[in-house]
Amino acid sequence: MKVLVIGLGALGTVYSCFLSLAGHEVTGVGRPAAINRIRRDGVMVTGIWGEHRAELNCVVSEISELVSDQFDMIIVTVKSFSTEEIAQDISRFVGEKTHVFLLQNGYGNFESAANYISEDKILLGRVIFGAELVAAGESMVTVIADDVVLGSPKNLISYELLEEYAVIFNKAGIPTKASHEIMKYIWGKIIYNSALNSLGAIFEVSYGQLADEPFTRDLINKIIREIFDVLAARHIETFWPDAQSYLENFYANLIPPTSAHHASMLQDIQSGRRTEIEYLSGAVVKLARESGIPVPVNEVIVSMVMAKEHFNYHR
Amino acid sequence: MKVLVIGLGALGTVYSCFLSLAGHEVTGVGRPAAINRIRRDGVMVTGIWGEHRAELNCVVSEISELVSDQFDMIIVTVKSFSTEEIAQDISRFVGEKTHVFLLQNGYGNFESAANYISEDKILLGRVIFGAELVAAGESMVTVIADDVVLGSPKNLISYELLEEYAVIFNKAGIPTKASHEIMKYIWGKIIYNSALNSLGAIFEVSYGQLADEPFTRDLINKIIREIFDVLAARHIETFWPDAQSYLENFYANLIPPTSAHHASMLQDIQSGRRTEIEYLSGAVVKLARESGIPVPVNEVIVSMVMAKEHFNYHR
Repeated sequence: MKVLVIGLGALGTVYSCFLSLAGHEVTGVGRPAAINRIRRDGVMVTGIWGEHRAELNCVVSEISELVSDQFDMIIVTVKSFSTEEIAQDISRFVGEKTHVFLLQNGYGNFESAANYISEDKILLGRVIFGAELVAAGESMVTVIADDVVLGSPKNLISYELLEEYAVIFNKAGIPTKASHEIMKYIWGKIIYNSALNSLGAIFEVSYGQLADEPFTRDLINKIIREIFDVLAARHIETFWPDAQSYLENFYANLIPPTSAHHASMLQDIQSGRRTEIEYLSGAVVKLARESGIPVPVNEVIVSMVMAKEHFNYHR
Repeated sequence: MKVLVIGLGALGTVYSCFLSLAGHEVTGVGRPAAINRIRRDGVMVTGIWGEHRAELNCVVSEISELVSDQFDMIIVTVKSFSTEEIAQDISRFVGEKTHVFLLQNGYGNFESAANYISEDKILLGRVIFGAELVAAGESMVTVIADDVVLGSPKNLISYELLEEYAVIFNKAGIPTKASHEIMKYIWGKIIYNSALNSLGAIFEVSYGQLADEPFTRDLINKIIREIFDVLAARHIETFWPDAQSYLENFYANLIPPTSAHHASMLQDIQSGRRTEIEYLSGAVVKLARESGIPVPVNEVIVSMVMAKEHFNYHR
């Protein structure tokens, strides 16, 4: 397969390395500061899946530098706020047999990409293994909570084809499964992140501390109840019939294994990077406004993370 | 006059020093850690009102140690969460001619004290000069925004008597005036603090930065509009007809001179002390609940400051 990986951060490095080692022809698009090292040393993965190193077929810093006419797979791993622009840039590489894999966080990536790419060409992936960028082109896989799940939000791609792609990723070493219900998986992750990632960024404490402290626990509960109000109003289904059953699962099963985890959004803020708050709590607020549902707590959370991002930027 | 000053922090040190130098017989109640130094060196005031030092008549660490049967003035400068207990302890010193001066922050001090002391014995004072405790018994006056205002919340004390007290404080060197409308002054300070002191504690930036950043400015506006909803529902009058006119005054006149100021509540949290959040935003939330008024933003603010206080305490 001819594969294009957009973004050579923690996740893009894992995908480009493993697909390359599995015999695919991988082109990578990374930050200018990173590509010289990747051209010289290749990409490397360490951690719980072992040590691996691969040369990429081609590494560029701008999509406009690419001359190849088409790709079979285009894997997008950039932050959600770049999806719209990236989708426009890659649309010229999307041919009859091409599929675009959006492996990003938050809500709105499918909708943004669909402005430039046909909906039946777009797959969403829910990724909940953890990878950290140790250096340019070097990623460490630290934890895997569940298989990557692939799907077509409106089920415009046959299940057989989704399974064929899952086989390709599994063979490459990335545990992956196909699903008819990708949006349920995506929402599961959005709900989790809207509560913990935002509050973790505001308070600078671990997920376990947020869940244990009665006042932040109360905020988590309010945030999640508001999200379920919005989901109900918009007839969006999840794996949980209501907020209460989500919360029971959340405290019993989701929090304990990630108790020591600190918010990636906090790391973004501390490094002066833009957060994905607009695609988490921000997306909830946008959907709520369209449907006339009050979500005051999520609104405050968005304002606070945006403010903290700005304060840090000016520091 | 026989004066009892409860609390020898920044404010209590100023009052005990100035009243003592004006010839009154001042007894002070302070923390055990501070009283040895005060017994030895007296109390001292520095800063914009000059340098002053005074010996106090008597200094104790517990009200129960006091044997004096009665006082003319009892000045309470402790944190609001101690008012109820203090009022109970001092009630035995309140005689026919005694008045109790509550010079504290927030809402609820009058109500708490009135559980143990007759309402016509209680004055509230709105203090907006700034003093910092430099060391035990040593206070620096840094800024004065306006005279101290004294009054009886239900106007149960004659204006003549209020003015007599104002004269005593003025002669001692603390600019003071009497008012029929003390609660309007108190609410002015509560509104200001509920917005700025809380957000300043959460974000750890100056008042000016909070007002300049669009997302925190939006939060300030929401906090203040909710408070005015509560005031309207409870027929509580302030000097402003509505939130909008308060906000105009706030940004034009109140913010600029305190732009560089950092929240005292942040200093409390960083020093492991309990904040007065329950008597600022917390009091607003309590009044709102009693009247069925939604104040979701103030609720989030209370939870966040309480959480931050607890996180810091366990650090």
